[in-house]
Amino acid sequence: MCDLMIIGGGPAGYVAAERAGHKGLSVILFEKNTMGGVCLNEGCIPTKTLLYSAKTYENALHADKYGVFTEKVHFDFEKIVARKNKIVRKLVAGVNSKMQQNNVTVVKGEAMIEKRTAEGIEIQCNNEKYVGKNLLICSGSQALIPPIEGLADVGETILTNREILNLKQQPESLVVIGGGVIGMEFASFYNSIGTEVTVVEMMPEILGNNDFEISAMLREIYSKKGIKFHLGAKVIRIDGNKVFFENENKLECIEGEKILMSVGRRPATEGFGLENIGVELFRGSIKVDEKMRTNIENIFAAGDVTGFSLLAHTASREGEVVVNNLTGHEDFMRYNAIPSVVYTNPEVAAAGETEESVKAKGIEYKVFKLPITFSGRFVAENEGGNGLCKVITDKNDVIIGVHILGNPASEIIFGACMAIEQNLALSQWQKVVFPHPTVCEIIKETIFL
Amino acid sequence: MCDLMIIGGGPAGYVAAERAGHKGLSVILFEKNTMGGVCLNEGCIPTKTLLYSAKTYENALHADKYGVFTEKVHFDFEKIVARKNKIVRKLVAGVNSKMQQNNVTVVKGEAMIEKRTAEGIEIQCNNEKYVGKNLLICSGSQALIPPIEGLADVGETILTNREILNLKQQPESLVVIGGGVIGMEFASFYNSIGTEVTVVEMMPEILGNNDFEISAMLREIYSKKGIKFHLGAKVIRIDGNKVFFENENKLECIEGEKILMSVGRRPATEGFGLENIGVELFRGSIKVDEKMRTNIENIFAAGDVTGFSLLAHTASREGEVVVNNLTGHEDFMRYNAIPSVVYTNPEVAAAGETEESVKAKGIEYKVFKLPITFSGRFVAENEGGNGLCKVITDKNDVIIGVHILGNPASEIIFGACMAIEQNLALSQWQKVVFPHPTVCEIIKETIFL
Repeated sequence: MCDLMIIGGGPAGYVAAERAGHKGLSVILFEKNTMGGVCLNEGCIPTKTLLYSAKTYENALHADKYGVFTEKVHFDFEKIVARKNKIVRKLVAGVNSKMQQNNVTVVKGEAMIEKRTAEGIEIQCNNEKYVGKNLLICSGSQALIPPIEGLADVGETILTNREILNLKQQPESLVVIGGGVIGMEFASFYNSIGTEVTVVEMMPEILGNNDFEISAMLREIYSKKGIKFHLGAKVIRIDGNKVFFENENKLECIEGEKILMSVGRRPATEGFGLENIGVELFRGSIKVDEKMRTNIENIFAAGDVTGFSLLAHTASREGEVVVNNLTGHEDFMRYNAIPSVVYTNPEVAAAGETEESVKAKGIEYKVFKLPITFSGRFVAENEGGNGLCKVITDKNDVIIGVHILGNPASEIIFGACMAIEQNLALSQWQKVVFPHPTVCEIIKETIFL
Repeated sequence: MCDLMIIGGGPAGYVAAERAGHKGLSVILFEKNTMGGVCLNEGCIPTKTLLYSAKTYENALHADKYGVFTEKVHFDFEKIVARKNKIVRKLVAGVNSKMQQNNVTVVKGEAMIEKRTAEGIEIQCNNEKYVGKNLLICSGSQALIPPIEGLADVGETILTNREILNLKQQPESLVVIGGGVIGMEFASFYNSIGTEVTVVEMMPEILGNNDFEISAMLREIYSKKGIKFHLGAKVIRIDGNKVFFENENKLECIEGEKILMSVGRRPATEGFGLENIGVELFRGSIKVDEKMRTNIENIFAAGDVTGFSLLAHTASREGEVVVNNLTGHEDFMRYNAIPSVVYTNPEVAAAGETEESVKAKGIEYKVFKLPITFSGRFVAENEGGNGLCKVITDKNDVIIGVHILGNPASEIIFGACMAIEQNLALSQWQKVVFPHPTVCEIIKETIFL
C-alpha cells in the first residue's frame, strides 16, 4: 500500500514522482517503455539535439559573415543521429537517478487498473498486485493518424515523430503533412541539412494558434531557405510516395521519399483499465478539475491525457499541482501563461493571448510591436536576420500576451510567463532593468513605444 | 529655451532624450564624440561583436562534437574588426534616427556649463548659447589609469578598452591587468582566437563582487582553455612590454606584446563647467538622490558619472527615472535588481545579493544550487560543458539573488531581476511554467530542491 501510484513516466509522471518522493510520499511509478516519455525519447529532447547539430552546420557554412572561414563543411547523418541517441540515454539515466534519489519505486511494465476498493486503487502489472491510496494517470498521447486513404501503412515511407527520429539515412525529399510545431521543427532540421522539404498545411497559415503575423514571417524566412509551402491544402489520399491534396478545388500531387504525418496528437486513454473504475472522459481526454482531480476523489490525471495543451511543461506543472494538493499545499492549475516554443532557426516563442484570440473573445486590447533588430545584440549576432516582438495588454495596461520571433526567444519567454502570471502592468515591467546588450531588452523597448 | 538639456549621448543620455522627446519635451543633447557613448563605441557593442566572431570560430573548430565537420577553419582578424566597425556604425545610425524621430536636437560639440539664472541653466557650445529649464548630466566615465610607474604611455603597448578595440593586428600575447568584467571579456576574445593571454588580478578572485564560487568555476574553465591567472598580484611597475608584480612578497615579471589596463573606470566630472554652478560631488561622482536629482533643483545626473554601477542598463534606467519625474510620473531608482553580465563563453549573469554580500550584511539567507547540466537543453547544446545556477532567498523565502554560469545566462537573468523587483516569493516562482526544454528551466529546478 503506497501513497501514490503513477501510470506513465513522462514529464507529468516523473516530475510528480520526484516532487512526491521528495516530500516523503511513498510512490510507485509504472512505465511500459523508457522513462522520460515521448518528450525525452521521441519529442522535445531528440529534436532539439538534431536541431542543434543543424544549427552548428548552418553556422559553420555561413561563418564568413563573422570573419571566420571554413572549407568543406559537411555533416555525418549517422553521427548526428548517434549523438542524439547518446544525449537521450544520458538524460533518461538522469531521470532514473532522480527517481532513485527520491525513493520512487519504478515498475517496468504495462499497468492495468483493476478496481477501486475501500483501501484505494488496485493495479496489476507483470502479474503482481499493487495498491495505492491515490492514483495519478499520466498516460500521455499518441500521434494522430487521420482516416485518410492509404494512411494505414505507417512505418516505412509514412512516418510519425517516432519513426522519423530513427531514420538511418537522410531522405532526399520529405513531405511534411501538418505545419504545426512538430512539423515545422522537422521541416527546419531537414531543410538545414539539404533535404528538399514540402509542407502541406490544411489551415491558411502554419503554426496553428500562434500569432498569425509571426507565423507568416517565419514561413517567409523558410520559403527563402527553400521550403515549399502549400497552405489551405487538404490531403485526401496517399499512394506510396505520392501525396494528393486539394487546394482551392484543384487536385494536386507531390512526391516525397519520406512523408511525415504531424497533424496532431490524441490522448492515450485505452488499454490500461480506465473503464474498470469509471473514470470520466470528455472529448477523448480524461476530465479533470483545476486541481487535476478526475470524477473520482483519489484519482488524478496530468499531462497530454488531459488534452489541455499537449506540452511537456504543462504536464510537469499539472503533476506538481497534484502533488502540492496531496501534500497539503492547495494549488490550482492555470493555463493563461503557458509558454509555447517553436525551435526553428529562428525560434518562435509565445505566451498568453494573441491578437486573434483577443479579437475572438471581444477583449479590448492594445498591441505594442517592434522589429527585433532594435536589439543591438541581435544585430551583432544575427547578420542579416530579422524578427519581431509583440506585446499585448488589456485595457488596464496589464500584460496578457507576448510573442517573439528571433533567437533566443525560447530562453526569454519565461519572463513573459512570469509577467502574465503576476498580472504585471506595463508600468511595473518598464521599471525592470534588463541587461544591456541583450536580445531580451527588445521586450522593454517594445513596451516603451 | 528648451525643457531639457542633456550633456552626453551615451545610454543614459540618449535613452533619456528619446523618452523625453517622445513625451513631448523639447530636448537638446550635446555630444562631443559619436552618439552612443562608450557603450556603443568602445564597450558593450564592439566587444559583443568581437566575442560573437570568436564564438563562431570556436564553434566551427569543435563542430565535430555535433556530427559536423570542417576543414581549415581560420579567421581574418581584419575582417572581424571591420565587421565590428560596421555594426557599431549601424547602431550609431539607429540612435541618431531615434533622436530625429523623437524631435531631439543633437548638438555636436563640447558643452560648457556657464551659469544658472532665474530662467534656467546656460550652456555654451561651439560659440553658441543654449538655455534650458532643466539639465541632465550624462558625462560618463573614463578608464582609470592608476599611478603605477611606467603607466604614463597609454596608446602603443599599454592599451585601455578604447585602443584595444582598434588594433590592426592580433597580438601574439596579451597581459590583462585587472580580471574584472572588461578584462575577462577581452581575455576571452583573445584566448579564443589563439593569443597567449595572462590575467593579473590584485584581488584573490576574478570578477570583483560576483559570486565567488561561480567566478572560480569560470576561472577554472579558462585555465583549461589556456589563460594564465595571477591572483592576489599587485602590479608595481611596467617597463616597455614587461609587467612587474608582487605575489606573496615575491617579485614576478611577465611580458606581453600588448598590455590591457582594465582596473576600473572613473566618473568624468571635469572639463564641462560643473564647478561654475556648484554641483556637489561625493567621492569623485556627482551626488544624486533617488530621483537622480543633484543638490540643485533643476539639475540631474544619470549614468557612470553618478558612480553607482557603471553599467549601460543602469544608466538608461537612471535616465528614465529623470524623465518620468520631469513629466509628472513619480519614479525612484532602485539598485537591488540590477543585472550584471560577463559575456565570456560560457557567460556569467547575476542579479541581487551574493552569498558573500548577505554574509557581510548579516542577513539570514538560504542558498539553493544545481549544476546547469540538470537542464536537458543545456546538455543537448553544450557537449562537455558545465555551469551552475544559484538562487539566494531571505528568511521569508523571498528571492534576493540569482547567479548563473552557462550560456545563455545573459538572456535569462532579466527574469531574476523581475522576481527580485517584484519581491517574489519562492512559492510564486515555483508556479511559473517555464518552457521545456530550455536552459532557463534550471532556475525552476534549482528552487524546487
